[in-house]
Amino acid sequence: MSASRVAWFKGKLVPEADARVSFRDFGFQVGDGVFDTARTVAHKPFMFEEHIARLYRSLAYVGIDPGLQPAAMLEATLEVLEANLPLIGPDDDYWVTQWISRGVRAEDRLGVDGPATVIIECSPLPLRHRARGMRDGLDVVTPAGIRRTPPEAISPRVKSMSYANLLAGDNEVQRLKPGATSVLLDTRGCLAEGLGSNIFIVHGGEVLTPHERFVLGGLSRQTVMAIAADKGISLREADIDLYDAYSADEAFITSTSWCMVPVRSINTRSIGSGEVPGQVTARLIEGYREKLGGFDFVAQYTRRLEGAN
Amino acid sequence: MSASRVAWFKGKLVPEADARVSFRDFGFQVGDGVFDTARTVAHKPFMFEEHIARLYRSLAYVGIDPGLQPAAMLEATLEVLEANLPLIGPDDDYWVTQWISRGVRAEDRLGVDGPATVIIECSPLPLRHRARGMRDGLDVVTPAGIRRTPPEAISPRVKSMSYANLLAGDNEVQRLKPGATSVLLDTRGCLAEGLGSNIFIVHGGEVLTPHERFVLGGLSRQTVMAIAADKGISLREADIDLYDAYSADEAFITSTSWCMVPVRSINTRSIGSGEVPGQVTARLIEGYREKLGGFDFVAQYTRRLEGAN
Amino acid sequence: MSASRVAWFKGKLVPEADARVSFRDFGFQVGDGVFDTARTVAHKPFMFEEHIARLYRSLAYVGIDPGLQPAAMLEATLEVLEANLPLIGPDDDYWVTQWISRGVRAEDRLGVDGPATVIIECSPLPLRHRARGMRDGLDVVTPAGIRRTPPEAISPRVKSMSYANLLAGDNEVQRLKPGATSVLLDTRGCLAEGLGSNIFIVHGGEVLTPHERFVLGGLSRQTVMAIAADKGISLREADIDLYDAYSADEAFITSTSWCMVPVRSINTRSIGSGEVPGQVTARLIEGYREKLGGFDFVAQYTRRLEGAN
Amino acid sequence: MSASRVAWFKGKLVPEADARVSFRDFGFQVGDGVFDTARTVAHKPFMFEEHIARLYRSLAYVGIDPGLQPAAMLEATLEVLEANLPLIGPDDDYWVTQWISRGVRAEDRLGVDGPATVIIECSPLPLRHRARGMRDGLDVVTPAGIRRTPPEAISPRVKSMSYANLLAGDNEVQRLKPGATSVLLDTRGCLAEGLGSNIFIVHGGEVLTPHERFVLGGLSRQTVMAIAADKGISLREADIDLYDAYSADEAFITSTSWCMVPVRSINTRSIGSGEVPGQVTARLIEGYREKLGGFDFVAQYTRRLEGAN
Amino acid sequence: MSASRVAWFKGKLVPEADARVSFRDFGFQVGDGVFDTARTVAHKPFMFEEHIARLYRSLAYVGIDPGLQPAAMLEATLEVLEANLPLIGPDDDYWVTQWISRGVRAEDRLGVDGPATVIIECSPLPLRHRARGMRDGLDVVTPAGIRRTPPEAISPRVKSMSYANLLAGDNEVQRLKPGATSVLLDTRGCLAEGLGSNIFIVHGGEVLTPHERFVLGGLSRQTVMAIAADKGISLREADIDLYDAYSADEAFITSTSWCMVPVRSINTRSIGSGEVPGQVTARLIEGYREKLGGFDFVAQYTRRLEGAN
Amino acid sequence: MSASRVAWFKGKLVPEADARVSFRDFGFQVGDGVFDTARTVAHKPFMFEEHIARLYRSLAYVGIDPGLQPAAMLEATLEVLEANLPLIGPDDDYWVTQWISRGVRAEDRLGVDGPATVIIECSPLPLRHRARGMRDGLDVVTPAGIRRTPPEAISPRVKSMSYANLLAGDNEVQRLKPGATSVLLDTRGCLAEGLGSNIFIVHGGEVLTPHERFVLGGLSRQTVMAIAADKGISLREADIDLYDAYSADEAFITSTSWCMVPVRSINTRSIGSGEVPGQVTARLIEGYREKLGGFDFVAQYTRRLEGAN
Repeated sequence: MSASRVAWFKGKLVPEADARVSFRDFGFQVGDGVFDTARTVAHKPFMFEEHIARLYRSLAYVGIDPGLQPAAMLEATLEVLEANLPLIGPDDDYWVTQWISRGVRAEDRLGVDGPATVIIECSPLPLRHRARGMRDGLDVVTPAGIRRTPPEAISPRVKSMSYANLLAGDNEVQRLKPGATSVLLDTRGCLAEGLGSNIFIVHGGEVLTPHERFVLGGLSRQTVMAIAADKGISLREADIDLYDAYSADEAFITSTSWCMVPVRSINTRSIGSGEVPGQVTARLIEGYREKLGGFDFVAQYTRRLEGAN
Repeated sequence: MSASRVAWFKGKLVPEADARVSFRDFGFQVGDGVFDTARTVAHKPFMFEEHIARLYRSLAYVGIDPGLQPAAMLEATLEVLEANLPLIGPDDDYWVTQWISRGVRAEDRLGVDGPATVIIECSPLPLRHRARGMRDGLDVVTPAGIRRTPPEAISPRVKSMSYANLLAGDNEVQRLKPGATSVLLDTRGCLAEGLGSNIFIVHGGEVLTPHERFVLGGLSRQTVMAIAADKGISLREADIDLYDAYSADEAFITSTSWCMVPVRSINTRSIGSGEVPGQVTARLIEGYREKLGGFDFVAQYTRRLEGAN
Repeated sequence: MSASRVAWFKGKLVPEADARVSFRDFGFQVGDGVFDTARTVAHKPFMFEEHIARLYRSLAYVGIDPGLQPAAMLEATLEVLEANLPLIGPDDDYWVTQWISRGVRAEDRLGVDGPATVIIECSPLPLRHRARGMRDGLDVVTPAGIRRTPPEAISPRVKSMSYANLLAGDNEVQRLKPGATSVLLDTRGCLAEGLGSNIFIVHGGEVLTPHERFVLGGLSRQTVMAIAADKGISLREADIDLYDAYSADEAFITSTSWCMVPVRSINTRSIGSGEVPGQVTARLIEGYREKLGGFDFVAQYTRRLEGAN
Repeated sequence: MSASRVAWFKGKLVPEADARVSFRDFGFQVGDGVFDTARTVAHKPFMFEEHIARLYRSLAYVGIDPGLQPAAMLEATLEVLEANLPLIGPDDDYWVTQWISRGVRAEDRLGVDGPATVIIECSPLPLRHRARGMRDGLDVVTPAGIRRTPPEAISPRVKSMSYANLLAGDNEVQRLKPGATSVLLDTRGCLAEGLGSNIFIVHGGEVLTPHERFVLGGLSRQTVMAIAADKGISLREADIDLYDAYSADEAFITSTSWCMVPVRSINTRSIGSGEVPGQVTARLIEGYREKLGGFDFVAQYTRRLEGAN
Repeated sequence: MSASRVAWFKGKLVPEADARVSFRDFGFQVGDGVFDTARTVAHKPFMFEEHIARLYRSLAYVGIDPGLQPAAMLEATLEVLEANLPLIGPDDDYWVTQWISRGVRAEDRLGVDGPATVIIECSPLPLRHRARGMRDGLDVVTPAGIRRTPPEAISPRVKSMSYANLLAGDNEVQRLKPGATSVLLDTRGCLAEGLGSNIFIVHGGEVLTPHERFVLGGLSRQTVMAIAADKGISLREADIDLYDAYSADEAFITSTSWCMVPVRSINTRSIGSGEVPGQVTARLIEGYREKLGGFDFVAQYTRRLEGAN
Repeated sequence: MSASRVAWFKGKLVPEADARVSFRDFGFQVGDGVFDTARTVAHKPFMFEEHIARLYRSLAYVGIDPGLQPAAMLEATLEVLEANLPLIGPDDDYWVTQWISRGVRAEDRLGVDGPATVIIECSPLPLRHRARGMRDGLDVVTPAGIRRTPPEAISPRVKSMSYANLLAGDNEVQRLKPGATSVLLDTRGCLAEGLGSNIFIVHGGEVLTPHERFVLGGLSRQTVMAIAADKGISLREADIDLYDAYSADEAFITSTSWCMVPVRSINTRSIGSGEVPGQVTARLIEGYREKLGGFDFVAQYTRRLEGAN
């Protein structure tokens, strides 16, 4: 099936296999680029405009001109999606991602030689693989030796193609607890973020999440904030250390693909009663379903467990 | 000429234009890879073994298996070089670089799908472009808003393909002083390093350079250390702040391509008398020439200015 | 004209040229003193009581007794102003400043020899010089090598006569970008303050300014806070890093003499659309005019450009 | 006697009372200047050249041109000294100080109006007042709430006229323990320096003193270093915390006027046996006497106690 | 009287003298345990449930199972109290404390040998000793050399039996100012907490107290928060530095035994007018009395001064 | 056998079971005490004088007077040892420990009521339990959420009875990797120390260990330093981060009971070739045996594996 998927590359749709970049591409050589990724919900675009707006904020920060305006970027994205949708089943969905690097580096390395590299593509969500996590909750582990890069070195709010810090943190976690979900601490010892995910804890009915200064301002995070406001659930940004985490009543993670997923343990300590989802999490999940027009993203994952296990 | 250069790709030599990686390559998407780069000296390999040894230390740290042993990596590197040497003039030289990423990411993003990506290639040194810098000394500027990532986030000693921090620092400098050479401060306010370069200052006859904990342990840096030891010049690692820098008698930068190049100013303040190279720098340059078997790397650069200017 | 201006010195009005302090004055030798400065608005005192109240908080902190009570200080200040007002034109205005040092140091340096030095004086505002900045917006640059002194060393809320830190920051900026306005970062990499000025950014309709713990609690800053509250504009103290700054919709600076002035760029990055003043800034400026009893402080500056340029 | 002392002011010798600066002087208003101070030893200049060399390093850092070359500065200094020497007794000595500010601030505060302010003067050493400290050792207290300004804010190696940080630290100490000698900790909790003094501790025969990056590189400190090298006493710069301090065998302070003075307690804890000077300190004092051509600076102080007490 | 007091030990009431632990107890050897302490109010339990709930949070954090459920712990506590109440006078009250260590360490130190050590006991409040402090206000001093352990080393919210940091801070204060009340600064230079006490300052009618991340979340602190909310007094957690402290209008301390007690000075600086209690403090004290069912805890202390002094 | 062991308690030998402390003991309640522990080597005291000297440095720091002089402490210690030696086998050995707390807390908690608590006791080394670690090397893991307390909070050089920080770190490690050896990072992300152990790494023939400012100055650590000096092996204190650790050629740990033990992995990464002991470690072990008069401490451990496993 992958054989027939297409990607936007050099301004037009090409088979994915033809979307290849030079080894001199700044993105490949030195991670000099940014990206953004949205998901479909029941084959429909969800918050594509917001993701593209964030993409352009990242582009502005690093000073890359993608060569097309946000509206054209959206149009191209929808075009890629439309072409690829027939290739997945009705209960599947896509990540839809724009990868934009500074372009091809001049052969004498003195700058860029030509336009930015712009690739737009669809990747199927790994629903089956993650179904158990959605049902049972994730086991979060914080790596010991890798702290999240502090904002004064490079702001985590730029969705940069240089992920070495988050990858090294995850690598360390996988060595100690294979299959765990890594969430890095910041240099002050507070919870920061994982590989493209945001974390939330619930304490005495109040929902807390790290300050945006230290993490990517995820759009699912923002969606949860809006839901909490709608439902009258108190939610605020805070410095959250491991004492807070271990004594939380509930915890959950947001990301584009998960939307929301409960956390059942942090560093092997059960969160709250250990039952997932907790009560506040469940209300927010309900709210998220409403935001998705009633689409049950939890069931989309957990259905994969039927007959399996 | 570039048309006929070749690169090592998927285990064999191919025209450079054919060495293209999937947009799903971990190197392209998230900078998940490492590299190392050596240079030729009068068309001869220089310290290739040492560079490859460091490459394997970087690989070990990030947990990537390149699929071939160091000796084979060296052999492949020499093969690429041999094929490309006829394409440059007798007074030109090459960067020779291994780029190694974790490989192609599975389409559901759940890990790597196949072997590591290994590319070995030659790029001509920008001798003409940099000739003036070699003759007159570089103007160093430290960016205000970007500090070098601290070792607890990701060690600068891994030559990672995630360069966003160094690139953002350089970007900031180019906006304020186009053409200046960026050297980042660390989070404690001490000199750290630039884009692939190390900095040294000379104070009262003693040579100081930042501790390796905060910077890449450059092989040219190491060469200068060896020369200093040979010549009885005191050289040590130190925490160097801007007061030290501004009141230095001399300063210089090392990198694979520059070998050594004098610095004439830091943040617009002239270093020492403003004449370059300073006396100690000159002795070290002389020692570097000897290490290169008498090859005059300074003249290789500055010859490009003849007839020009 | 300067010849005939008077200052308060040793308890009475004297020609400015006679207000001279011993080289042994603690203020001169080691910056051991505090000051405060208000401005006139259309020749009328503005917030003189509040400035004097802050002056006495500074005095209390450093343990200097000025030898007269706040009411007497105010009276003396008004006396100086009254004497000097005839010396400026109807569209000019004054800074009115109290400089208070610990007094004259004993010749054996073992303490103070006599009463505190109290000087009260008027200085004409440099309206013409700054007119362009008011019209076009200021270009803010953050120095690389000088971070604002942290509160645990000396609180920035004391308006001390020891300005070396702010001066060194400004000096660094002037070397790189002559004419730019310096705003220092704090030791955590967040915006702090400039030479006697506070900075604000506007983000999504909300106004942010650094926490008072890290900056002088400027009275113009306080005025803007009051205006925002009056007009229902959300304004809060925050940790503001350069990502926030670069992606701000608007920015402005407050100081006693400027009242408010738009910022058009930070580290060469245009703020928002680049048009000044931004919409929220304009509303606050309007509110500031109302606080000044309708006096158009913007026009007072920009009128100086007529016929000029 | 003070009536007839003279100072260098505006390029010539004047009675001290005539050496008065405008309240607009940058030194008075905002501590924008630098100074250096040497002492006489038995009426002879001691290390005047070195002090003036350091003065010019401070001037270079802050970018002030004093309008005369180092040789002329030395000549003027000697002239001041010669004129004032007859005014003190044969067993007295002078501090000899150059105070150099940026000059008089323009009345519209837009820069400097005229040349730098240069004042050179003599102040008698407070030998009697300090005699007991020399005999019994000083009681050092570290202030709780004031840490020494970190180098990234303003380097302590510039002998700036902005002393608010050191003064606030001393003020806090005097409130808690009147008469104690303040030595500030740096922001990492290590010993830094006092008001114009450096501290040393002796541990197991080795002498330790804070790294110069965090303190003024005192010339007496440098003299002690040279003496230690001469006498084969191990001495090195180190991070010294309060555990080191409390468990030290000996401690002493250096400054221009004290030369060296023993410390008998730190934060009320007796150092070593409590007897002063300790053995290593005594050897260094002996070496210091030799450096002074045999002059007994200790006796010069303690003679003041005879007949007294 | 102490002879006849009883304690809960090994599951039953025993004379206090029989409640002795092995020198191998983890609590004795390495402070491996937690505790909590409540007080009686007019011989009645006050917030015992809340204290026990916090005790179990501490137990969970350190992973100690006390071998009985919270309800049984409460029952045992009340039993101890009941047995001991007849031993104090009608105007006296008790601290009632649970001490729970990991148990007895195996003789080869390889773990615990048997159940947790659980001791519950009553100690009479030192009302007479503290009466003057309640009447006149406490003199708070912050130690210079000991900062409160940061949360990333060990969270201050666990009421651990390892008190070395708080004890060392208090020790330093007692050496400099015998009788003063120690309050440690955190590693950022902000007020943290004292030996089992929380500090509050009042500024312009608003009450501020350190963030719970840096201090024990005292139950008296929580009570004051509830009172403030009831009475419409603004109260919030904040970073409070010494500038805030010195310029506060009022200050007070809370602890289980004091409930609330005014602070009259911090580092020898009088707070506000120097009169205690301040106006806001007085309102909160009034509210505290109401929470205690009208019991006048202030008078309980100050009555001890009658006839005395 | 334990039944008949004796301990020093209240100035005389008593059966261990009688050496019990009041629950009011400052050591039990708040970890207010210090200790030191030496070991026997083939039933002979080893470095007892040095351990007792360190004990008295700890006592001095916390201000506890044990009521007997070092010589008497040594004598008592030897007396305890002599009485207990008959109770272990010829191939066994003892830890010999002095536990000294401030004494019994007054019942109103207002200070100490009586003399310091002094207990001296013998505990058999867990040779069998640790035999495998000695043979195969230890697996070191650094905890993620617990950093070693920084020296400005409480110096790690005091061997305090407040171990909550080290215990919490070990607890976290045991949850993630049961049986691993915990070594905490300091707040800068560098290796610090474990529960009573010091760590060393070997890099290119040079041995590195953390600076004593951040760790206990272990006597085994000191012994290794002396051996290295004797054997001409370069050894120095350094800031060692995890990059250094992972790329080390060898690593080992020292403690009183282990003397020296190889490390085979850090955070699951094999050190060097994975073979233990490495070459330099083996030379140091050999030197350690010589220091022990030829006693083979390694064989003492590994003999326990014979017949087993």
